[in-house]
Amino acid sequence: MTGTQVAKVTESCHPEYKVGMHVVGDFGWQTRAVVNADDPGASLWLEKPYIIPDFSGLPLSLALGVLGMPGNTAYFGFLEICDPKPGDVVVVSGAAGAVGSHVGQIAQLKGCKVIGFTGSDEKVKWLVDELRFDAAFNYKTTDVVEALKQSTPEGVDCYFDNVGGALSSAVISQMRFRGRISVCGSISSYNADISKLPQAPDIQRTVLRKELKMEGFSVKYWNDRWDEGIKQNLQWIKEGKLVYRETVTEGFENMTKAFIGMLRGENIGKAVVKV
Amino acid sequence: MTGTQVAKVTESCHPEYKVGMHVVGDFGWQTRAVVNADDPGASLWLEKPYIIPDFSGLPLSLALGVLGMPGNTAYFGFLEICDPKPGDVVVVSGAAGAVGSHVGQIAQLKGCKVIGFTGSDEKVKWLVDELRFDAAFNYKTTDVVEALKQSTPEGVDCYFDNVGGALSSAVISQMRFRGRISVCGSISSYNADISKLPQAPDIQRTVLRKELKMEGFSVKYWNDRWDEGIKQNLQWIKEGKLVYRETVTEGFENMTKAFIGMLRGENIGKAVVKV
Repeated sequence: MTGTQVAKVTESCHPEYKVGMHVVGDFGWQTRAVVNADDPGASLWLEKPYIIPDFSGLPLSLALGVLGMPGNTAYFGFLEICDPKPGDVVVVSGAAGAVGSHVGQIAQLKGCKVIGFTGSDEKVKWLVDELRFDAAFNYKTTDVVEALKQSTPEGVDCYFDNVGGALSSAVISQMRFRGRISVCGSISSYNADISKLPQAPDIQRTVLRKELKMEGFSVKYWNDRWDEGIKQNLQWIKEGKLVYRETVTEGFENMTKAFIGMLRGENIGKAVVKV
Repeated sequence: MTGTQVAKVTESCHPEYKVGMHVVGDFGWQTRAVVNADDPGASLWLEKPYIIPDFSGLPLSLALGVLGMPGNTAYFGFLEICDPKPGDVVVVSGAAGAVGSHVGQIAQLKGCKVIGFTGSDEKVKWLVDELRFDAAFNYKTTDVVEALKQSTPEGVDCYFDNVGGALSSAVISQMRFRGRISVCGSISSYNADISKLPQAPDIQRTVLRKELKMEGFSVKYWNDRWDEGIKQNLQWIKEGKLVYRETVTEGFENMTKAFIGMLRGENIGKAVVKV
Protein backbone atom coordinates (compact mmCIF):
# COMPACT_ATOMS: atom_id res chain seq x y z
CA MET A 1 0.00 0.00 0.00
CA THR A 2 1.87 3.08 -1.20
CA GLY A 3 -0.95 5.41 -0.36
CA THR A 4 -1.69 8.54 -2.34
CA GLN A 5 -0.49 12.07 -1.67
CA VAL A 6 -1.33 15.64 -2.57
CA ALA A 7 2.12 17.12 -3.20
CA LYS A 8 3.47 20.49 -4.25
CA VAL A 9 5.99 20.60 -7.06
CA THR A 10 9.09 22.26 -5.54
CA GLU A 11 11.56 21.60 -8.35
CA SER A 12 10.87 20.48 -11.92
CA CYS A 13 12.55 19.92 -15.26
CA HIS A 14 9.31 18.64 -16.87
CA PRO A 15 7.43 21.13 -19.08
CA GLU A 16 3.94 20.07 -17.89
CA TYR A 17 4.67 19.98 -14.17
CA LYS A 18 5.63 23.48 -13.05
CA VAL A 19 6.97 24.61 -9.69
CA GLY A 20 4.10 25.57 -7.38
CA MET A 21 1.57 23.21 -8.98
CA HIS A 22 -0.24 20.70 -6.80
CA VAL A 23 -0.37 17.13 -8.01
CA VAL A 24 -1.75 13.79 -6.84
CA GLY A 25 0.42 10.69 -7.01
CA ASP A 26 1.54 7.52 -5.31
CA PHE A 27 4.85 8.90 -4.02
CA GLY A 28 5.34 6.68 -0.98
CA TRP A 29 5.06 7.31 2.74
CA GLN A 30 7.57 10.16 2.79
CA THR A 31 7.68 13.93 3.11
CA ARG A 32 9.63 14.56 -0.12
CA ALA A 33 10.02 12.47 -3.27
CA VAL A 34 11.91 12.60 -6.55
CA VAL A 35 9.68 11.32 -9.35
CA ASN A 36 9.98 10.77 -13.06
CA ALA A 37 6.54 12.06 -14.04
CA ASP A 38 6.55 10.11 -17.29
CA ASP A 39 7.30 6.82 -15.55
CA PRO A 40 6.28 7.15 -11.91
CA GLY A 41 6.53 3.41 -11.21
CA ALA A 42 3.90 1.04 -9.90
CA SER A 43 0.57 2.60 -9.02
CA LEU A 44 -2.76 1.01 -8.39
CA TRP A 45 -4.57 3.48 -10.62
CA LEU A 46 -2.49 6.42 -11.82
CA GLU A 47 -0.51 6.43 -15.03
CA LYS A 48 1.23 9.67 -14.12
CA PRO A 49 0.86 12.36 -11.44
CA TYR A 50 -2.48 14.13 -11.80
CA ILE A 51 -2.39 17.94 -11.87
CA ILE A 52 -5.16 19.16 -9.57
CA PRO A 53 -7.61 21.38 -11.47
CA ASP A 54 -9.37 24.45 -10.05
CA PHE A 55 -11.41 23.33 -7.02
CA SER A 56 -13.16 26.74 -6.66
CA GLY A 57 -11.53 27.31 -3.28
CA LEU A 58 -12.28 23.91 -1.76
CA PRO A 59 -9.41 22.25 0.15
CA LEU A 60 -6.83 20.45 -1.97
CA SER A 61 -7.05 17.39 0.30
CA LEU A 62 -10.34 16.62 -1.47
CA ALA A 63 -8.17 15.48 -4.37
CA LEU A 64 -7.55 12.39 -2.21
CA GLY A 65 -11.23 11.80 -1.57
CA VAL A 66 -14.44 13.14 -2.98
CA LEU A 67 -12.64 14.97 -5.83
CA GLY A 68 -10.12 12.24 -6.50
CA MET A 69 -9.81 8.51 -6.92
CA PRO A 70 -12.44 7.55 -4.29
CA GLY A 71 -14.88 10.07 -5.76
CA ASN A 72 -14.39 8.73 -9.26
CA THR A 73 -14.59 5.16 -7.95
CA ALA A 74 -18.01 5.98 -6.54
CA TYR A 75 -19.12 7.89 -9.63
CA PHE A 76 -18.08 5.43 -12.31
CA GLY A 77 -18.13 2.18 -10.34
CA PHE A 78 -21.70 2.77 -9.21
CA LEU A 79 -23.24 4.41 -12.27
CA GLU A 80 -21.53 2.25 -14.90
CA ILE A 81 -21.79 -1.16 -13.22
CA CYS A 82 -24.94 -0.89 -11.08
CA ASP A 83 -26.78 1.08 -13.78
CA PRO A 84 -29.30 2.48 -11.26
CA LYS A 85 -32.83 3.46 -12.32
CA PRO A 86 -35.18 5.79 -10.41
CA GLY A 87 -37.03 3.75 -7.79
CA ASP A 88 -34.33 1.09 -7.54
CA VAL A 89 -33.31 -0.14 -4.11
CA VAL A 90 -29.56 0.32 -3.59
CA VAL A 91 -27.56 -1.30 -0.79
CA VAL A 92 -24.06 -0.08 0.07
CA SER A 93 -21.65 -1.87 2.39
CA GLY A 94 -18.81 0.06 3.98
CA ALA A 95 -21.39 2.82 3.68
CA ALA A 96 -19.67 5.42 5.86
CA GLY A 97 -16.35 5.25 4.03
CA ALA A 98 -15.21 7.76 1.42
CA VAL A 99 -16.56 5.69 -1.46
CA GLY A 100 -19.61 4.19 0.24
CA SER A 101 -20.99 7.49 1.56
CA HIS A 102 -20.50 9.03 -1.87
CA VAL A 103 -22.27 6.14 -3.66
CA GLY A 104 -25.25 6.42 -1.32
CA GLN A 105 -25.64 10.09 -2.14
CA ILE A 106 -25.35 9.58 -5.89
CA ALA A 107 -28.01 6.88 -5.56
CA GLN A 108 -30.33 9.39 -3.87
CA LEU A 109 -29.61 11.94 -6.60
CA LYS A 110 -30.70 9.29 -9.11
CA GLY A 111 -34.00 8.73 -7.30
CA CYS A 112 -33.11 5.45 -5.61
CA LYS A 113 -33.94 4.17 -2.13
CA VAL A 114 -30.65 3.74 -0.24
CA ILE A 115 -29.76 1.35 2.57
CA GLY A 116 -26.31 1.32 4.16
CA PHE A 117 -24.38 -1.17 6.25
CA THR A 118 -21.56 0.09 8.40
CA GLY A 119 -19.65 -0.87 11.54
CA SER A 120 -20.71 1.50 14.35
CA ASP A 121 -23.81 3.19 15.71
CA GLU A 122 -22.15 6.58 15.32
CA LYS A 123 -21.76 5.94 11.59
CA VAL A 124 -25.35 4.72 11.32
CA LYS A 125 -26.48 8.00 12.86
CA TRP A 126 -24.38 10.04 10.43
CA LEU A 127 -25.75 8.13 7.42
CA VAL A 128 -29.38 8.54 8.45
CA ASP A 129 -29.33 12.02 10.04
CA GLU A 130 -26.89 13.85 7.80
CA LEU A 131 -26.73 11.90 4.55
CA ARG A 132 -30.46 11.06 4.62
CA PHE A 133 -30.05 7.37 3.82
CA ASP A 134 -33.46 5.68 3.90
CA ALA A 135 -32.04 3.19 6.40
CA ALA A 136 -28.67 2.23 7.83
CA PHE A 137 -27.58 -0.63 10.07
CA ASN A 138 -24.61 -1.60 12.20
CA TYR A 139 -23.80 -5.00 10.67
CA LYS A 140 -22.00 -6.03 13.87
CA THR A 141 -25.21 -5.92 15.90
CA THR A 142 -27.84 -6.64 13.23
CA ASP A 143 -29.14 -9.71 11.42
CA VAL A 144 -28.45 -8.48 7.89
CA VAL A 145 -31.10 -10.62 6.18
CA GLU A 146 -33.78 -9.64 8.69
CA ALA A 147 -32.84 -5.95 8.45
CA LEU A 148 -33.23 -6.09 4.68
CA LYS A 149 -36.45 -8.07 4.77
CA GLN A 150 -37.97 -5.44 7.02
CA SER A 151 -36.57 -2.28 5.44
CA THR A 152 -36.99 -3.41 1.84
CA PRO A 153 -39.36 -6.38 1.48
CA GLU A 154 -39.42 -5.73 -2.27
CA GLY A 155 -35.75 -6.78 -2.54
CA VAL A 156 -32.52 -5.16 -3.66
CA ASP A 157 -31.75 -4.02 -7.22
CA CYS A 158 -28.19 -2.74 -6.84
CA TYR A 159 -25.49 -3.73 -4.40
CA PHE A 160 -22.31 -1.70 -4.15
CA ASP A 161 -19.95 -3.99 -2.28
CA ASN A 162 -16.94 -2.74 -0.34
CA VAL A 163 -16.75 -5.63 2.09
CA GLY A 164 -17.29 -9.16 0.72
CA GLY A 165 -17.69 -12.20 2.99
CA ALA A 166 -20.77 -13.21 4.92
CA LEU A 167 -22.29 -9.71 4.88
CA SER A 168 -22.25 -9.72 1.09
CA SER A 169 -23.70 -13.24 0.87
CA ALA A 170 -26.57 -12.03 3.05
CA VAL A 171 -27.22 -8.95 0.92
CA ILE A 172 -27.00 -10.94 -2.32
CA SER A 173 -29.53 -13.47 -0.97
CA GLN A 174 -32.07 -10.61 -0.83
CA MET A 175 -31.55 -9.38 -4.37
CA ARG A 176 -34.25 -8.98 -6.91
CA PHE A 177 -34.44 -10.44 -10.43
CA ARG A 178 -31.73 -9.03 -12.74
CA GLY A 179 -29.92 -7.17 -9.93
CA ARG A 180 -26.44 -5.71 -10.39
CA ILE A 181 -23.50 -6.06 -8.01
CA SER A 182 -20.52 -3.74 -8.25
CA VAL A 183 -17.56 -5.28 -6.41
CA CYS A 184 -15.41 -2.36 -5.29
CA GLY A 185 -13.72 -3.79 -2.22
CA SER A 186 -13.55 -6.91 -0.06
CA ILE A 187 -12.12 -5.49 3.13
CA SER A 188 -13.40 -8.48 5.15
CA SER A 189 -10.80 -10.71 3.50
CA TYR A 190 -7.87 -8.34 2.89
CA ASN A 191 -5.93 -9.95 5.72
CA ALA A 192 -6.84 -13.52 4.75
CA ASP A 193 -4.34 -15.96 3.31
CA ILE A 194 -5.35 -16.28 -0.36
CA SER A 195 -5.21 -20.08 -0.07
CA LYS A 196 -7.60 -20.08 2.90
CA LEU A 197 -10.22 -17.49 2.04
CA PRO A 198 -12.92 -17.12 4.69
CA GLN A 199 -16.02 -19.23 4.17
CA ALA A 200 -19.28 -17.51 3.30
CA PRO A 201 -22.67 -18.84 2.20
CA ASP A 202 -22.47 -19.80 -1.48
CA ILE A 203 -23.92 -17.11 -3.75
CA GLN A 204 -24.01 -19.04 -7.05
CA ARG A 205 -27.56 -20.28 -6.60
CA THR A 206 -28.88 -16.77 -6.05
CA VAL A 207 -26.81 -15.43 -8.94
CA LEU A 208 -28.40 -18.12 -11.11
CA ARG A 209 -32.01 -17.93 -9.97
CA LYS A 210 -32.17 -14.17 -9.84
CA GLU A 211 -30.03 -13.86 -12.99
CA LEU A 212 -27.68 -11.40 -11.32
CA LYS A 213 -24.68 -9.65 -12.79
CA MET A 214 -21.58 -9.13 -10.66
CA GLU A 215 -18.44 -7.32 -11.69
CA GLY A 216 -15.17 -6.42 -10.03
CA PHE A 217 -13.57 -3.26 -11.35
CA SER A 218 -10.71 -0.85 -11.06
CA VAL A 219 -11.32 2.87 -11.48
CA LYS A 220 -8.56 2.77 -14.10
CA TYR A 221 -11.20 1.63 -16.63
CA TRP A 222 -12.41 5.19 -16.79
CA ASN A 223 -9.05 6.97 -16.92
CA ASP A 224 -10.08 8.54 -20.23
CA ARG A 225 -13.18 10.03 -18.57
CA TRP A 226 -11.39 11.11 -15.37
CA ASP A 227 -12.23 14.82 -15.60
CA GLU A 228 -15.92 14.09 -16.17
CA GLY A 229 -16.16 12.47 -12.72
CA ILE A 230 -14.19 15.20 -10.93
CA LYS A 231 -16.25 17.93 -12.61
CA GLN A 232 -19.64 16.35 -11.79
CA ASN A 233 -18.69 15.67 -8.17
CA LEU A 234 -17.41 19.26 -7.78
CA GLN A 235 -20.67 20.53 -9.26
CA TRP A 236 -22.74 18.46 -6.80
CA ILE A 237 -20.67 19.79 -3.87
CA LYS A 238 -21.21 23.40 -5.01
CA GLU A 239 -24.96 22.77 -5.27
CA GLY A 240 -24.98 21.38 -1.73
CA LYS A 241 -26.08 17.96 -2.99
CA LEU A 242 -22.98 16.02 -2.00
CA VAL A 243 -21.76 16.00 1.60
CA TYR A 244 -18.28 14.70 2.33
CA ARG A 245 -16.27 14.14 5.45
CA GLU A 246 -12.61 13.61 6.16
CA THR A 247 -10.99 12.05 9.18
CA VAL A 248 -7.77 14.05 9.41
CA THR A 249 -4.79 12.82 11.42
CA GLU A 250 -2.08 15.42 12.04
CA GLY A 251 1.62 14.61 11.69
CA PHE A 252 3.74 12.33 9.56
CA GLU A 253 4.68 10.29 12.62
CA ASN A 254 1.01 9.29 13.08
CA MET A 255 0.61 7.87 9.58
CA THR A 256 0.80 4.20 10.61
CA LYS A 257 -1.71 4.80 13.37
CA ALA A 258 -4.08 6.46 10.89
CA PHE A 259 -3.70 3.57 8.42
CA ILE A 260 -4.43 0.92 11.04
CA GLY A 261 -7.33 2.98 12.35
CA MET A 262 -8.80 3.06 8.83
CA LEU A 263 -8.57 -0.74 8.52
CA ARG A 264 -10.21 -1.01 11.95
CA GLY A 265 -13.05 1.18 10.72
CA GLU A 266 -12.33 4.17 12.99
CA ASN A 267 -12.66 6.78 10.24
CA ILE A 268 -15.77 8.38 8.81
CA GLY A 269 -15.29 9.43 5.21
CA LYS A 270 -11.81 9.70 3.74
CA ALA A 271 -8.87 9.04 6.06
CA VAL A 272 -6.27 11.77 5.45
CA VAL A 273 -2.93 12.47 7.11
CA LYS A 274 -1.82 16.09 7.19
CA VAL A 275 1.95 16.46 7.06
CA MET B 1 -39.66 -29.77 -12.03
CA THR B 2 -42.15 -30.35 -14.80
CA GLY B 3 -39.57 -31.72 -17.18
CA THR B 4 -39.79 -31.27 -20.90
CA GLN B 5 -41.30 -33.63 -23.47
CA VAL B 6 -41.23 -34.34 -27.16
CA ALA B 7 -44.89 -34.95 -27.94
CA LYS B 8 -46.93 -35.73 -31.02
CA VAL B 9 -50.03 -33.66 -31.71
CA THR B 10 -52.88 -36.21 -31.83
CA GLU B 11 -55.81 -33.79 -31.82
CA SER B 12 -55.83 -30.06 -32.48
CA CYS B 13 -58.12 -27.11 -32.99
CA HIS B 14 -55.22 -24.63 -33.24
CA PRO B 15 -54.27 -23.54 -36.78
CA GLU B 16 -50.49 -23.59 -36.18
CA TYR B 17 -50.31 -26.93 -34.40
CA LYS B 18 -51.46 -29.63 -36.81
CA VAL B 19 -52.13 -33.29 -36.07
CA GLY B 20 -48.99 -35.34 -36.65
CA MET B 21 -46.59 -32.52 -35.82
CA HIS B 22 -43.98 -33.04 -33.13
CA VAL B 23 -43.61 -30.34 -30.50
CA VAL B 24 -41.54 -29.67 -27.41
CA GLY B 25 -43.21 -28.45 -24.26
CA ASP B 26 -43.45 -28.69 -20.49
CA PHE B 27 -46.51 -30.92 -20.39
CA GLY B 28 -45.97 -32.67 -17.06
CA TRP B 29 -44.95 -36.19 -16.14
CA GLN B 30 -47.77 -37.87 -18.05
CA THR B 31 -48.34 -39.86 -21.23
CA ARG B 32 -51.06 -37.60 -22.66
CA ALA B 33 -51.88 -33.95 -22.04
CA VAL B 34 -54.44 -31.37 -23.07
CA VAL B 35 -52.75 -28.01 -23.61
CA ASN B 36 -53.83 -24.52 -24.57
CA ALA B 37 -50.94 -23.77 -26.93
CA ASP B 38 -51.40 -20.02 -26.55
CA ASP B 39 -51.22 -20.18 -22.76
CA PRO B 40 -49.49 -23.39 -21.75
CA GLY B 41 -48.97 -22.35 -18.12
CA ALA B 42 -45.81 -22.07 -16.11
CA SER B 43 -42.65 -23.06 -17.90
CA LEU B 44 -39.06 -22.38 -17.03
CA TRP B 45 -38.22 -21.30 -20.53
CA LEU B 46 -40.94 -21.88 -23.15
CA GLU B 47 -43.59 -19.32 -24.03
CA LYS B 48 -45.52 -21.86 -26.10
CA PRO B 49 -44.92 -25.38 -27.44
CA TYR B 50 -42.03 -25.36 -29.92
CA ILE B 51 -42.68 -27.03 -33.28
CA ILE B 52 -39.66 -29.21 -34.05
CA PRO B 53 -38.06 -28.17 -37.36
CA ASP B 54 -36.48 -30.54 -39.91
CA PHE B 55 -33.66 -32.42 -38.14
CA SER B 56 -32.39 -34.02 -41.38
CA GLY B 57 -33.25 -37.48 -40.11
CA LEU B 58 -31.68 -37.16 -36.66
CA PRO B 59 -33.75 -38.53 -33.74
CA LEU B 60 -36.47 -36.22 -32.42
CA SER B 61 -35.29 -36.81 -28.85
CA LEU B 62 -32.44 -34.43 -29.68
CA ALA B 63 -35.03 -31.66 -29.37
CA LEU B 64 -34.67 -32.26 -25.62
CA GLY B 65 -30.91 -32.04 -25.70
CA VAL B 66 -28.34 -30.92 -28.20
CA LEU B 67 -31.00 -29.49 -30.56
CA GLY B 68 -33.19 -28.06 -27.85
CA MET B 69 -33.05 -26.04 -24.66
CA PRO B 70 -29.78 -27.54 -23.35
CA GLY B 71 -28.14 -27.02 -26.76
CA ASN B 72 -29.23 -23.40 -26.88
CA THR B 73 -28.22 -22.92 -23.25
CA ALA B 74 -24.71 -24.04 -24.18
CA TYR B 75 -24.65 -22.03 -27.40
CA PHE B 76 -25.92 -18.69 -26.09
CA GLY B 77 -24.94 -18.97 -22.43
CA PHE B 78 -21.33 -19.71 -23.31
CA LEU B 79 -20.80 -17.53 -26.37
CA GLU B 80 -22.74 -14.49 -25.16
CA ILE B 81 -21.60 -14.40 -21.52
CA CYS B 82 -18.12 -15.95 -21.61
CA ASP B 83 -17.26 -14.20 -24.89
CA PRO B 84 -14.44 -16.68 -25.67
CA LYS B 85 -11.44 -15.67 -27.76
CA PRO B 86 -9.09 -18.08 -29.58
CA GLY B 87 -6.40 -19.19 -27.15
CA ASP B 88 -8.55 -18.59 -24.06
CA VAL B 89 -8.55 -21.21 -21.33
CA VAL B 90 -12.10 -22.42 -20.66
CA VAL B 91 -13.14 -24.44 -17.61
CA VAL B 92 -16.49 -26.26 -17.52
CA SER B 93 -18.02 -27.86 -14.43
CA GLY B 94 -20.66 -30.53 -14.82
CA ALA B 95 -18.63 -31.14 -17.98
CA ALA B 96 -20.15 -34.48 -18.97
CA GLY B 97 -23.74 -33.28 -18.82
CA ALA B 98 -25.82 -32.26 -21.83
CA VAL B 99 -24.88 -28.60 -21.50
CA GLY B 100 -21.34 -29.00 -20.19
CA SER B 101 -20.19 -31.43 -22.87
CA HIS B 102 -21.67 -29.17 -25.52
CA VAL B 103 -19.98 -26.03 -24.12
CA GLY B 104 -16.60 -27.79 -24.11
CA GLN B 105 -16.95 -28.67 -27.77
CA ILE B 106 -18.02 -25.17 -28.81
CA ALA B 107 -14.99 -23.85 -26.89
CA GLN B 108 -12.74 -26.14 -28.94
CA LEU B 109 -14.42 -24.98 -32.16
CA LYS B 110 -13.59 -21.42 -31.11
CA GLY B 111 -9.91 -22.29 -30.64
CA CYS B 112 -9.90 -22.44 -26.84
CA LYS B 113 -8.11 -24.79 -24.46
CA VAL B 114 -10.76 -26.75 -22.54
CA ILE B 115 -10.62 -28.28 -19.07
CA GLY B 116 -13.56 -30.17 -17.60
CA PHE B 117 -14.57 -31.17 -14.09
CA THR B 118 -16.98 -34.06 -13.66
CA GLY B 119 -17.95 -36.65 -11.09
CA SER B 120 -16.61 -40.04 -12.25
CA ASP B 121 -13.54 -41.56 -13.91
CA GLU B 122 -15.73 -42.98 -16.68
CA LYS B 123 -16.89 -39.47 -17.55
CA VAL B 124 -13.31 -38.15 -17.41
CA LYS B 125 -12.33 -40.83 -19.93
CA TRP B 126 -15.21 -39.89 -22.25
CA LEU B 127 -14.33 -36.19 -22.12
CA VAL B 128 -10.65 -36.76 -22.90
CA ASP B 129 -10.83 -39.74 -25.29
CA GLU B 130 -13.96 -38.94 -27.27
CA LEU B 131 -14.60 -35.22 -26.86
CA ARG B 132 -10.87 -34.37 -26.93
CA PHE B 133 -10.94 -32.05 -23.94
CA ASP B 134 -7.38 -30.87 -23.20
CA ALA B 135 -7.81 -32.14 -19.65
CA ALA B 136 -10.58 -33.46 -17.43
CA PHE B 137 -10.68 -34.32 -13.73
CA ASN B 138 -12.91 -36.16 -11.31
CA TYR B 139 -13.57 -33.41 -8.76
CA LYS B 140 -14.39 -36.04 -6.13
CA THR B 141 -10.85 -37.41 -6.12
CA THR B 142 -8.84 -34.35 -7.20
CA ASP B 143 -7.57 -31.19 -5.55
CA VAL B 144 -9.24 -28.73 -7.93
CA VAL B 145 -6.77 -25.87 -7.35
CA GLU B 146 -3.75 -28.14 -7.80
CA ALA B 147 -5.25 -29.73 -10.94
CA LEU B 148 -5.74 -26.27 -12.46
CA LYS B 149 -2.32 -24.99 -11.42
CA GLN B 150 -0.72 -27.94 -13.18
CA SER B 151 -2.88 -28.18 -16.28
CA THR B 152 -3.16 -24.44 -16.86
CA PRO B 153 -0.54 -22.46 -14.94
CA GLU B 154 -1.45 -19.43 -17.07
CA GLY B 155 -4.88 -19.25 -15.41
CA VAL B 156 -8.49 -19.47 -16.54
CA ASP B 157 -10.22 -16.94 -18.83
CA CYS B 158 -13.74 -18.36 -18.98
CA TYR B 159 -15.62 -20.47 -16.47
CA PHE B 160 -18.93 -22.06 -17.42
CA ASP B 161 -20.44 -23.03 -14.08
CA ASN B 162 -23.07 -25.75 -13.69
CA VAL B 163 -22.25 -26.61 -10.11
CA GLY B 164 -21.53 -23.74 -7.68
CA GLY B 165 -20.20 -24.30 -4.16
CA ALA B 166 -16.62 -25.11 -3.19
CA LEU B 167 -15.69 -26.43 -6.65
CA SER B 168 -16.60 -23.08 -8.18
CA SER B 169 -14.77 -21.09 -5.51
CA ALA B 170 -11.66 -23.14 -6.34
CA VAL B 171 -11.98 -22.57 -10.10
CA ILE B 172 -12.66 -18.85 -9.63
CA SER B 173 -9.55 -18.53 -7.44
CA GLN B 174 -7.49 -19.57 -10.47
CA MET B 175 -8.97 -17.09 -12.91
CA ARG B 176 -7.01 -14.65 -14.94
CA PHE B 177 -7.43 -10.87 -15.13
CA ARG B 178 -10.78 -9.83 -16.68
CA GLY B 179 -12.15 -13.41 -16.75
CA ARG B 180 -15.82 -14.15 -17.43
CA ILE B 181 -18.05 -16.53 -15.45
CA SER B 182 -21.30 -17.80 -16.91
CA VAL B 183 -23.51 -19.17 -14.11
CA CYS B 184 -25.75 -21.78 -15.71
CA GLY B 185 -26.44 -24.09 -12.79
CA SER B 186 -25.65 -24.61 -9.12
CA ILE B 187 -26.47 -28.27 -8.72
CA SER B 188 -24.35 -28.52 -5.55
CA SER B 189 -26.93 -26.44 -3.67
CA TYR B 190 -30.23 -27.40 -5.32
CA ASN B 191 -31.19 -29.41 -2.27
CA ALA B 192 -30.05 -26.82 0.25
CA ASP B 193 -32.42 -24.81 2.39
CA ILE B 194 -32.23 -21.27 0.93
CA SER B 195 -31.76 -19.85 4.43
CA LYS B 196 -28.79 -22.14 5.11
CA LEU B 197 -26.85 -22.17 1.87
CA PRO B 198 -23.67 -24.29 2.00
CA GLN B 199 -20.52 -22.43 2.91
CA ALA B 200 -17.83 -21.96 0.28
CA PRO B 201 -14.65 -19.91 0.24
CA ASP B 202 -15.54 -16.26 -0.40
CA ILE B 203 -15.05 -15.26 -4.05
CA GLN B 204 -15.47 -11.47 -3.75
CA ARG B 205 -11.76 -10.80 -3.27
CA THR B 206 -10.87 -12.67 -6.44
CA VAL B 207 -13.73 -11.03 -8.35
CA LEU B 208 -12.32 -7.68 -7.23
CA ARG B 209 -8.59 -8.23 -7.76
CA LYS B 210 -8.96 -10.01 -11.06
CA GLU B 211 -11.78 -7.71 -12.14
CA LEU B 212 -14.02 -10.62 -13.07
CA LYS B 213 -17.50 -10.54 -14.53
CA MET B 214 -20.06 -13.10 -13.40
CA GLU B 215 -23.59 -13.46 -14.69
CA GLY B 216 -26.46 -15.81 -14.04
CA PHE B 217 -28.77 -16.29 -16.99
CA SER B 218 -31.81 -18.04 -18.34
CA VAL B 219 -31.84 -19.27 -21.92
CA LYS B 220 -35.09 -17.31 -22.29
CA TYR B 221 -32.99 -14.19 -22.93
CA TRP B 222 -32.37 -15.46 -26.42
CA ASN B 223 -35.90 -16.65 -27.27
CA ASP B 224 -35.90 -14.30 -30.25
CA ARG B 225 -32.75 -15.97 -31.61
CA TRP B 226 -33.87 -19.54 -30.81
CA ASP B 227 -33.65 -20.89 -34.36
CA GLU B 228 -30.14 -19.51 -34.81
CA GLY B 229 -28.86 -21.78 -32.02
CA ILE B 230 -30.72 -24.88 -33.24
CA LYS B 231 -29.51 -24.33 -36.81
CA GLN B 232 -25.85 -23.84 -35.86
CA ASN B 233 -25.83 -26.87 -33.55
CA LEU B 234 -27.47 -29.03 -36.26
CA GLN B 235 -24.86 -27.82 -38.74
CA TRP B 236 -22.01 -28.74 -36.38
CA ILE B 237 -23.50 -32.22 -35.87
CA LYS B 238 -23.76 -32.77 -39.64
CA GLU B 239 -20.12 -31.69 -40.06
CA GLY B 240 -19.06 -34.18 -37.39
CA LYS B 241 -17.83 -31.38 -35.15
CA LEU B 242 -20.30 -31.86 -32.32
CA VAL B 243 -20.62 -35.19 -30.52
CA TYR B 244 -23.63 -35.76 -28.28
CA ARG B 245 -24.75 -38.54 -26.03
CA GLU B 246 -28.04 -39.46 -24.42
CA THR B 247 -28.67 -41.65 -21.41
CA VAL B 248 -32.00 -43.23 -22.33
CA THR B 249 -34.23 -44.88 -19.73
CA GLU B 250 -37.06 -46.99 -21.13
CA GLY B 251 -40.57 -46.87 -19.70
CA PHE B 252 -42.79 -44.26 -18.10
CA GLU B 253 -42.67 -46.17 -14.81
CA ASN B 254 -38.90 -45.60 -14.58
CA MET B 255 -39.12 -41.82 -14.87
CA THR B 256 -38.54 -41.10 -11.17
CA LYS B 257 -35.56 -43.43 -11.13
CA ALA B 258 -34.11 -41.63 -14.18
CA PHE B 259 -34.64 -38.24 -12.57
CA ILE B 260 -32.95 -39.23 -9.32
CA GLY B 261 -30.14 -40.89 -11.28
CA MET B 262 -29.57 -37.62 -13.14
CA LEU B 263 -29.32 -35.66 -9.88
CA ARG B 264 -26.91 -38.31 -8.58
CA GLY B 265 -24.75 -37.83 -11.67
CA GLU B 266 -25.35 -41.26 -13.20
CA ASN B 267 -26.06 -39.97 -16.72
CA ILE B 268 -23.63 -38.98 -19.45
CA GLY B 269 -25.08 -36.36 -21.77
CA LYS B 270 -28.80 -35.69 -21.79
CA ALA B 271 -31.00 -37.86 -19.56
CA VAL B 272 -34.04 -38.93 -21.61
CA VAL B 273 -36.98 -41.21 -20.76
CA LYS B 274 -38.53 -43.07 -23.68
CA VAL B 275 -42.23 -43.68 -23.19
